[in-house]
Amino acid sequence: MKASSLIRKCKFDKNGLVPAIIQDAKTAQVLMVAYMNRQALKKTLETKKTCFFSRSRKKLWLKGESSGHIQRVRGVFLDCDGDAILIKVAQKEAACHTGYYSCFYREMDLKKGQLKIKGKRIFDPKKIYR
Amino acid sequence: MKASSLIRKCKFDKNGLVPAIIQDAKTAQVLMVAYMNRQALKKTLETKKTCFFSRSRKKLWLKGESSGHIQRVRGVFLDCDGDAILIKVAQKEAACHTGYYSCFYREMDLKKGQLKIKGKRIFDPKKIYR
Repeated sequence: MKASSLIRKCKFDKNGLVPAIIQDAKTAQVLMVAYMNRQALKKTLETKKTCFFSRSRKKLWLKGESSGHIQRVRGVFLDCDGDAILIKVAQKEAACHTGYYSCFYREMDLKKGQLKIKGKRIFDPKKIYR
Repeated sequence: MKASSLIRKCKFDKNGLVPAIIQDAKTAQVLMVAYMNRQALKKTLETKKTCFFSRSRKKLWLKGESSGHIQRVRGVFLDCDGDAILIKVAQKEAACHTGYYSCFYREMDLKKGQLKIKGKRIFDPKKIYR
């Protein structure tokens, strides 16, 4: 494991963060976007479970730490500019805290000017988060 | 077309930006990440071609304006928090300015601590950008 030389190739912004796009390794569905600092990326590479930096709580969070809905890392890609990361994962249960498999469960309906729900709820958030 | 009511549902950050993940509508491959301000999103929704805000040049850029490699919008999704957008597109030629189809053409090799190229170059950047 040589995480440090890979981490050096990432360009973190002035807040020390890089956006990470999380994609289902099997279906290629985009599940969520979250942010990583150096420590979160290191932890993700070393443990093979996604770990992010919460911009609101100002601390690391292991994805699934309260829900159990962890993401096992299957592949990590860096973009051409080095300032965005794509991570392919095996998602346990569902990615979104609302209960949907993907956080992108609302599509813009341009004719009606409304958001419409796409996909089904996989779990009831009230039962998972107490 | 009721773009304004949809734009109001997006949470732009303190710089007035929201990250947009661009995904191939057919293959589901993630092509790139770029940023939109309100104006770029409005233009994207109205013209059905992706338009971004360049953080380095501080201005709007129509994707493909110099290369011709435009992206036709097939669907626009908003995430649960409203602070990230997913856009499914039909990509002309290739998305990356390096000539690769996707900007995420380098995979982290955790054993070797190196990036390895995935995918083939579709065009020669020297011939496209003068």
